[in-house]
Amino acid sequence: MKIAVVGIGAIGRAWAISFMRAGFEVKVWNNTPGRMDAARELIEQILPDLHEADLLNGLTPTEAMRNFIPCPTLEEAVGDAEYVQENTAENVEVKREMFSQIEAHAPAGTIIASSTSGIVPSSFSLHLEHPERCLVAHPLNPPYLVPAVDLVPSPATSDATMQRAAEIMRDCGQVPILMNKEDPGFITIRLQGMMYHECWRLVNEGMADPESIDVAVREGLGLRWSFIGPFETADLNAPGGIRDFVGRFGDDLNAIHPRVTDPVRWEGALLDKVDAERRKRLPMDAHKQRQLWRDRRLIALAAHKRARARQES
Amino acid sequence: MKIAVVGIGAIGRAWAISFMRAGFEVKVWNNTPGRMDAARELIEQILPDLHEADLLNGLTPTEAMRNFIPCPTLEEAVGDAEYVQENTAENVEVKREMFSQIEAHAPAGTIIASSTSGIVPSSFSLHLEHPERCLVAHPLNPPYLVPAVDLVPSPATSDATMQRAAEIMRDCGQVPILMNKEDPGFITIRLQGMMYHECWRLVNEGMADPESIDVAVREGLGLRWSFIGPFETADLNAPGGIRDFVGRFGDDLNAIHPRVTDPVRWEGALLDKVDAERRKRLPMDAHKQRQLWRDRRLIALAAHKRARARQES
Repeated sequence: MKIAVVGIGAIGRAWAISFMRAGFEVKVWNNTPGRMDAARELIEQILPDLHEADLLNGLTPTEAMRNFIPCPTLEEAVGDAEYVQENTAENVEVKREMFSQIEAHAPAGTIIASSTSGIVPSSFSLHLEHPERCLVAHPLNPPYLVPAVDLVPSPATSDATMQRAAEIMRDCGQVPILMNKEDPGFITIRLQGMMYHECWRLVNEGMADPESIDVAVREGLGLRWSFIGPFETADLNAPGGIRDFVGRFGDDLNAIHPRVTDPVRWEGALLDKVDAERRKRLPMDAHKQRQLWRDRRLIALAAHKRARARQES
Repeated sequence: MKIAVVGIGAIGRAWAISFMRAGFEVKVWNNTPGRMDAARELIEQILPDLHEADLLNGLTPTEAMRNFIPCPTLEEAVGDAEYVQENTAENVEVKREMFSQIEAHAPAGTIIASSTSGIVPSSFSLHLEHPERCLVAHPLNPPYLVPAVDLVPSPATSDATMQRAAEIMRDCGQVPILMNKEDPGFITIRLQGMMYHECWRLVNEGMADPESIDVAVREGLGLRWSFIGPFETADLNAPGGIRDFVGRFGDDLNAIHPRVTDPVRWEGALLDKVDAERRKRLPMDAHKQRQLWRDRRLIALAAHKRARARQES
């Protein structure tokens, strides 16, 4: 797999590591050539830590570095790339121009993805000859430790591009979040943002101090969320699964959140859709077993956190 | 420390384990006597797993079980208790009557806490002679693996009660969330509820399927949240700390959440309060070092998750 990483700041460097450890050939270009040496040095610093934690897929740091190929020109970096990850400034004009240049030098079928965290792909790709191969692939930071990646299509992005981008992400150990349509609120950003809104609101209402709210997450809700998502959490928290869960708690959830306009109706077609997907992933006859799995994972996580706390004290 | 656990269903049992492994003497009473044997059996099943994971504070399962003391009457269970944890039905009348009975038999200074997840303490404690020693101590499930506990005062609860309850929680390895005033939306419940609202809204808007949203949390946001809370996460995500963070992203956070009425103003006295607390906990000259600590913790967590995935496959 031939990858091009365009722009080698913090995000570009982190992407390079994800691709390099997957065994991909990573050609790297930056518009300020002097920054390449600094980038290489920073990557060389982190690889031994990843190797020690067995997070380099069995490669040595030296073997991983062989996949890091600085290029003097953009043309050279993207000329034979199957996938380009763009990481330039968070500025729509910069990205628009960069996407034009990438298209000018890359093969026609190359997928071109931007790391932007909030600029919609239509704003910098619709003017291209082949906008159907463009999308946003927004990582959390750093992607080599946090696998989730928002994949955001523009109205012109083809299904084949989304599927192929998801496949490439999986091949390098990331886990794609497939957005069905373009929106400036990417999934991870919207979920995190809503959490920030509620946290600050709690402080503003005088309910609790920031530290207590942080405790509620890092010693509470965040433990399960580090290995099961909110839908599965709810699904496993009622004996009859998620339909049972919202039947028990749906009214309470609306009652305690008066500040949400247009509150969710936990019923009808929406509930049917959510319930059907959960039951497809977890038939009810495996529900009890999955609860036991969740409990074992919680034990393992508690042991992990206790061991870390001891190491640090 | 002498504890009474009143009601020995799933929540009561789990509390008993937290108290027993802390070396507390745990007197247990249930209104249906036949359920005591079943409870003991279920506790005896889980203790070896906790021991194997080094989560019994060095006690053997047999030693821990010595702290489990079934009592034939409520009077015997609470008669010399310093702290009572009530776990009866989620019904305000039941709790009202139970708190009366507990007060009738417990010493005057005993703290009486309910495990309820949504009934405010004023509704079942203000009729007592000493409501100042009553509160809600709401666990996540199970408390012996998930340390956070919402501590909710009624308008009558004394500061001394809140502080002493927090101390007892810390002494048995829990981490208290101190609510400043009574509200039916306890902190963990409100944060989780807002997450559910946004997850379902994303599905309802056709943005993504439940599984992609779960991925955004369990392979993304939830990783950091398993060891740092949202305020610290934001604080570490901008070079100048949380004030810098909301200066950069506050407008975007409001723009992508049009469904929130009365959106947070990330400024003025609210920002001063949040910023002051963060800087008290983390002076700016230790900020960079804490970012490095966060990155090491992320590496350790990624290694932990990878090891679990290998064990399970």
